[in-house]
Amino acid sequence: MAELEGLLEPTALSELVRRWLKEDVPSFDFGGAVVGDGIETAVLYSKSKGILAGKPFFQAVFDELNCEVEWRTSASDGEALDGPFPIALADVKGPVRKILLGERLALNVLSRCSGIATRSSGLVNIAKQTGWKGIIAGTRKTTPGFRLVEKYGLLAGNADTHRMDLSSMVMLKDNHIASSGSIRKAVEKAKIVAGFSAKIEVECSSVEDAKEAVEAGADVVMLDNFKPKALQGAAQELRKWAGGHNFFIEASGGLSEASLADYCVSGVDILSLSIMQGAPVVDFSLKIPRKSA
Amino acid sequence: MAELEGLLEPTALSELVRRWLKEDVPSFDFGGAVVGDGIETAVLYSKSKGILAGKPFFQAVFDELNCEVEWRTSASDGEALDGPFPIALADVKGPVRKILLGERLALNVLSRCSGIATRSSGLVNIAKQTGWKGIIAGTRKTTPGFRLVEKYGLLAGNADTHRMDLSSMVMLKDNHIASSGSIRKAVEKAKIVAGFSAKIEVECSSVEDAKEAVEAGADVVMLDNFKPKALQGAAQELRKWAGGHNFFIEASGGLSEASLADYCVSGVDILSLSIMQGAPVVDFSLKIPRKSA
Amino acid sequence: MAELEGLLEPTALSELVRRWLKEDVPSFDFGGAVVGDGIETAVLYSKSKGILAGKPFFQAVFDELNCEVEWRTSASDGEALDGPFPIALADVKGPVRKILLGERLALNVLSRCSGIATRSSGLVNIAKQTGWKGIIAGTRKTTPGFRLVEKYGLLAGNADTHRMDLSSMVMLKDNHIASSGSIRKAVEKAKIVAGFSAKIEVECSSVEDAKEAVEAGADVVMLDNFKPKALQGAAQELRKWAGGHNFFIEASGGLSEASLADYCVSGVDILSLSIMQGAPVVDFSLKIPRKSA
Amino acid sequence: MAELEGLLEPTALSELVRRWLKEDVPSFDFGGAVVGDGIETAVLYSKSKGILAGKPFFQAVFDELNCEVEWRTSASDGEALDGPFPIALADVKGPVRKILLGERLALNVLSRCSGIATRSSGLVNIAKQTGWKGIIAGTRKTTPGFRLVEKYGLLAGNADTHRMDLSSMVMLKDNHIASSGSIRKAVEKAKIVAGFSAKIEVECSSVEDAKEAVEAGADVVMLDNFKPKALQGAAQELRKWAGGHNFFIEASGGLSEASLADYCVSGVDILSLSIMQGAPVVDFSLKIPRKSA
Amino acid sequence: MAELEGLLEPTALSELVRRWLKEDVPSFDFGGAVVGDGIETAVLYSKSKGILAGKPFFQAVFDELNCEVEWRTSASDGEALDGPFPIALADVKGPVRKILLGERLALNVLSRCSGIATRSSGLVNIAKQTGWKGIIAGTRKTTPGFRLVEKYGLLAGNADTHRMDLSSMVMLKDNHIASSGSIRKAVEKAKIVAGFSAKIEVECSSVEDAKEAVEAGADVVMLDNFKPKALQGAAQELRKWAGGHNFFIEASGGLSEASLADYCVSGVDILSLSIMQGAPVVDFSLKIPRKSA
Amino acid sequence: MAELEGLLEPTALSELVRRWLKEDVPSFDFGGAVVGDGIETAVLYSKSKGILAGKPFFQAVFDELNCEVEWRTSASDGEALDGPFPIALADVKGPVRKILLGERLALNVLSRCSGIATRSSGLVNIAKQTGWKGIIAGTRKTTPGFRLVEKYGLLAGNADTHRMDLSSMVMLKDNHIASSGSIRKAVEKAKIVAGFSAKIEVECSSVEDAKEAVEAGADVVMLDNFKPKALQGAAQELRKWAGGHNFFIEASGGLSEASLADYCVSGVDILSLSIMQGAPVVDFSLKIPRKSA
Repeated sequence: MAELEGLLEPTALSELVRRWLKEDVPSFDFGGAVVGDGIETAVLYSKSKGILAGKPFFQAVFDELNCEVEWRTSASDGEALDGPFPIALADVKGPVRKILLGERLALNVLSRCSGIATRSSGLVNIAKQTGWKGIIAGTRKTTPGFRLVEKYGLLAGNADTHRMDLSSMVMLKDNHIASSGSIRKAVEKAKIVAGFSAKIEVECSSVEDAKEAVEAGADVVMLDNFKPKALQGAAQELRKWAGGHNFFIEASGGLSEASLADYCVSGVDILSLSIMQGAPVVDFSLKIPRKSA
Repeated sequence: MAELEGLLEPTALSELVRRWLKEDVPSFDFGGAVVGDGIETAVLYSKSKGILAGKPFFQAVFDELNCEVEWRTSASDGEALDGPFPIALADVKGPVRKILLGERLALNVLSRCSGIATRSSGLVNIAKQTGWKGIIAGTRKTTPGFRLVEKYGLLAGNADTHRMDLSSMVMLKDNHIASSGSIRKAVEKAKIVAGFSAKIEVECSSVEDAKEAVEAGADVVMLDNFKPKALQGAAQELRKWAGGHNFFIEASGGLSEASLADYCVSGVDILSLSIMQGAPVVDFSLKIPRKSA
Repeated sequence: MAELEGLLEPTALSELVRRWLKEDVPSFDFGGAVVGDGIETAVLYSKSKGILAGKPFFQAVFDELNCEVEWRTSASDGEALDGPFPIALADVKGPVRKILLGERLALNVLSRCSGIATRSSGLVNIAKQTGWKGIIAGTRKTTPGFRLVEKYGLLAGNADTHRMDLSSMVMLKDNHIASSGSIRKAVEKAKIVAGFSAKIEVECSSVEDAKEAVEAGADVVMLDNFKPKALQGAAQELRKWAGGHNFFIEASGGLSEASLADYCVSGVDILSLSIMQGAPVVDFSLKIPRKSA
Repeated sequence: MAELEGLLEPTALSELVRRWLKEDVPSFDFGGAVVGDGIETAVLYSKSKGILAGKPFFQAVFDELNCEVEWRTSASDGEALDGPFPIALADVKGPVRKILLGERLALNVLSRCSGIATRSSGLVNIAKQTGWKGIIAGTRKTTPGFRLVEKYGLLAGNADTHRMDLSSMVMLKDNHIASSGSIRKAVEKAKIVAGFSAKIEVECSSVEDAKEAVEAGADVVMLDNFKPKALQGAAQELRKWAGGHNFFIEASGGLSEASLADYCVSGVDILSLSIMQGAPVVDFSLKIPRKSA
Repeated sequence: MAELEGLLEPTALSELVRRWLKEDVPSFDFGGAVVGDGIETAVLYSKSKGILAGKPFFQAVFDELNCEVEWRTSASDGEALDGPFPIALADVKGPVRKILLGERLALNVLSRCSGIATRSSGLVNIAKQTGWKGIIAGTRKTTPGFRLVEKYGLLAGNADTHRMDLSSMVMLKDNHIASSGSIRKAVEKAKIVAGFSAKIEVECSSVEDAKEAVEAGADVVMLDNFKPKALQGAAQELRKWAGGHNFFIEASGGLSEASLADYCVSGVDILSLSIMQGAPVVDFSLKIPRKSA
Repeated sequence: MAELEGLLEPTALSELVRRWLKEDVPSFDFGGAVVGDGIETAVLYSKSKGILAGKPFFQAVFDELNCEVEWRTSASDGEALDGPFPIALADVKGPVRKILLGERLALNVLSRCSGIATRSSGLVNIAKQTGWKGIIAGTRKTTPGFRLVEKYGLLAGNADTHRMDLSSMVMLKDNHIASSGSIRKAVEKAKIVAGFSAKIEVECSSVEDAKEAVEAGADVVMLDNFKPKALQGAAQELRKWAGGHNFFIEASGGLSEASLADYCVSGVDILSLSIMQGAPVVDFSLKIPRKSA
């Protein structure tokens, strides 16, 4: 999955890193003045199990600081780090003050991004083991300002990003429907503004809602807060009703790591849940080897 | 602890919210065009146990969108939400599209900030129950770009922010010491650039290191990766050696929710650990009541 | 179509206006010091035929400058301005220097936005008169930095925005296909990264390409540079081949105001062309009535 | 006219390109992940007649993306592209995803900038053919946020930028004069704030106004909305009245491509009109040659 | 001179204040949390002689913080503060933490701006007392990022801003002339790019240079580093040579407060020197009256 | 003191320079178009006595413009420039238009930074000559937006930066104490929010205040506006009372270059005064050698 890096616009990466560094060094870098500009090489180690994710962000931190990163690992984002630990992943070479300047930031991004990939991958595997063929998707419950990293982590863990933001796929919920008067009217309004190029999803609390949504032209119907059994029944009824007509059925609400397998029922295409909230981190460190005296 | 809000510079809050909204609406808000500008009042509900934290961020989101927030709760940031749930915390009044525009963002901040306060509070309580009188502090392992919210959450949970960034208290680690030649030389360099107004902390791997640091004028010595028993011995030895001389002893490394109580030993002033990583979230929702037909 | 305003995130409007004002007043506003702060009311006039578009941008300019805009017209964005001219559309009240400060900027946005709406509407009408039921869409050939206004103008003129940017619907062109090895492989890759929530379009130079794209799961096939007759043949062949299977057929390349009607053939859903480039403007002015002496 | 590039501050170019890329890629570049990082060389072709303008902007787009641009053409901005078409102008070499990332943006800037140069040049030539020696100037009716490119295009087409913004030459209009009490008083006020280094222009509706303006020290008088014959009379009367006294006479209002020649009367130094509004574009494309299998 | 405030674009003021506050509060405002949100009224006092300047900046600081400023003084920027001191100038009302937040910033701007006005006014008076009628102008030797305030201070002190920046009046120095080949060629090049609306100044080391510059169409000739007597001779020779032809003669180099009077010779229109460097400050304070217990 | 450069975060330097260049070139660099892109080498000369400070800022200006700076001098920031003048300090090589573009900005920063270092150094020397061993510190009376440069200048002149901003050491003044009820309560509140890592200073108007502050745990007590004799008495009384207890005594108010020596009394650790206000500048120039014809 080496091509994930291709998702990232290079100057946007640069801007992100600059903003993050500003947060960590609002005025002077006192430690930097102590440690000086001697050239050193630090080693990035992986120290715990997980899915690697976030290499381009790690790289971008040191690119902005004019340090060189040489990857020792052939692992791409999305591959498992299985030990034995520590695993030396990369060398970072440059003035020691710049290495230390970027250290905490680069590790903070890498460990969070990998943590989300790890959780995503775990959820995907749970679903796979049930034999279900659908998609696990993360929601918009992301950390404000950090969505790009978190959605990237989802992809590295084989999950789906779901819609990126409010300018992507239109999601019509109860308030949109109430203010428009009906599901049909809400979908029609959405089609006018979002046009042919964006998908439309409708949050449905019943099979009837879902039928109305599909007839109105929704691309995705989201069965909200259905229990597993009810979900399966609803999905089958809808598929039967629809014949060969193309649309996605998503289920959301009440899903957790513990309950996920129960929801992996046939007829449902997508299961979405909050993957970022409370996601674990993967442990990495950056060490400058000390020469023995 | 109502005064925590006083920590936040108002125009910085505004800039944060603007940046976060930009992330969620890079071009058009399609749903906003569907739902329109009818005036509605949404209710913020607390749905799970935890420590409330982040009211000023929630408020700032809707301030930027010109919606009114009226707090129904008298609870300040830092107070426990104990149920029965749901608890109606606030009313948000404004054009429905603006309420929906801010909804996810405001909840994302509030739930994360409260989650960190909740974990902080839990750790502080564990320590208190041992009878220990010291400080629990969170480290710089924060989410890039989101530190202000996370450090605020620490405070709401009665933990200590530790240094905010590299422009605050100087922390001298092995690399600073190696490049300076000795602990003493590193502290001297740090004093020149950081001056009298900033504290200096030295990471120490032995009691000897700590003594050298204190003699050089360090304000805080950090005993790194000591086991509980060794920590206690080291702290006592240092206190005895130092007489009445004023300095803080911090311990870090190897600390977790599970092991924390073991480290609450006398002579140690501060225990620091990564509180943000993998912190849980507290559950909130924002609902517009539907009138029955 | 009053709800178009709902598409615009309020703080993004504010940021745009601030950036535009900065462009027009990099240091001092010399004229402002001459004219002073007397309160005046200026009248916005429409002076030439066209479709009105851009009211929220006009409003936002004066909101930022703390001037009041009172709309005299009941016309929403998207309605025709038919004369007799001048038509008084709105009053702008505030310190005269602030009215003059915003004048040129507000008119520049309004006249361009309305110009694009006018051209869009004209193209849509040409297509309608042929009896064709499809969609006219504008491309990404927008003025850098000004896309939000231009895409908004398209919508006001009943055209479709097509994809907003590279983070919206994925468009696979010859280079994507060549580097992936085949249409099928390119679509598969796109599905992994863009997920279920984004549509995928494939640029096709033959019916065979289009069939491969549809089979691979493309949502839209774009028949590139087909002459009208060939386009009609291709579309019919594809529809027949596909049976009831759902997908859009778009045609692009070689389309202009003059040739558009020829391309309005059955089976084609979308005709896309560059609407912004060289679009005319609609004429507005802002006048402060002079009292007779 | 190779030195036009010297007008552009390098870091400002970089900031513009970053902002434009952000507009086109607010989150992920899905196509970039599909197409990958193979090194390719694309060719920039000119496809229609016009004046070339905007090379430094085209260059800056690919500089920010770390692609190399090698110009095949010796043509500088301002030179005519006369065919036969296509003309290969430049090679752009780099990872294919970065070439495609910059493609649309770079072409959007180049085609608009060249379009404005082309229209400017056309107007200048119309004026020249009448034997008139004056200056054709574009007004401040520019696209918000895009003025630097558009004013640059004017220069490449041998037109004059007129004042760049409200911080440049002071233009005193009816409102400034009304609020100051008289032309003389308005000019005096302007001189105090704008100082000796900025010119002052006064919009005049009569020869008497113009005389008052010149006597007050205006550098330029603008005869507003005069018909050609009246303009000529006014200009001659003013010149006669002024003797050898130095000042410019500008005419504006009612000018178009069609009427321009009529206004090219002796005594008038500057004819200003809106050149950007509705300007055509020049057609360019960027193609990666496909190797035959 | 009340109208100086009209020079300032309101949203630019807001952005400046936001940036300045960010500098002073990069993360938490600890003092703000201590002092709380009680409503207080602080009084702005003038404490030393000088020219008042910077009221709109002072106002803007507290506008951004939602505190009210009520001016007790009728003095406009540019008027002398003559005592007896302290003079109560204004009341600032709002939450005490916001008053303290803005206090230092608002005073820093006001005292610097007034200091520059004071020095400017002193220099202008020295010149006036010699009977000379020309202009005293400050150069571009301003504090980076703070030019708007400093140039505003010049105006409040009756000095001239000289050109604001490199996008204003073109100044041709030895390097421009050397690279162009001659003064005439440099002026011609400048006229092409800067157009009719910008003035052109040429730095001259001899009367011959100045004549060449005037003949080429320079609006201002700057006699560089002439001693007073030589300056007077040169100016007279130039005036005689030029007859009634209009142009400004500026002198620069070697000017200081001590030597200024010597340079006030007839024929010279403008004397320019560095007014900002090392300018004194005027003393102000902001006090919250303490109620006696 | 070569390590001062280590204080500066590289991307923050880049952002500062970009903002400063934007101020100096808001639209076109007319002179740049005249002078062209020929490669030249300019020489930076020191022209007056002082302490050199600001090399990294000078360097950063030309780094952003892709010019090379080669330092001829071995002098680091903080060393004295003693003549004979001019001293050639560095060569700057690049396209002549870029050298001229950066010239004024680079000199403005260098001359101001060196001026502050020079004044700082002078004050430090005055204090040293009295035999006093304490610290001279500059206050927060800095130029808004320019603090980083000014605080850097302090350090180069061997002075102390005092707290950098409101997010550094907490300073409790009369208003904080009044609103909290007592010094003790104010210090307690401050400790909660600022935590163990930040120092707390209390402004005291009497020895009693200072004792209360020390007992409450203040790290620094600031004796405000004490006359020299009273200061000495107060300091001695406090030291005696405190025994070996660790804390700093600072004095502020009424200090100037003239009075400084009087305040250098034993028992006082820190003397703080406004060093930036009205600081002189050190004179530098950048010259491109002219070849003789």
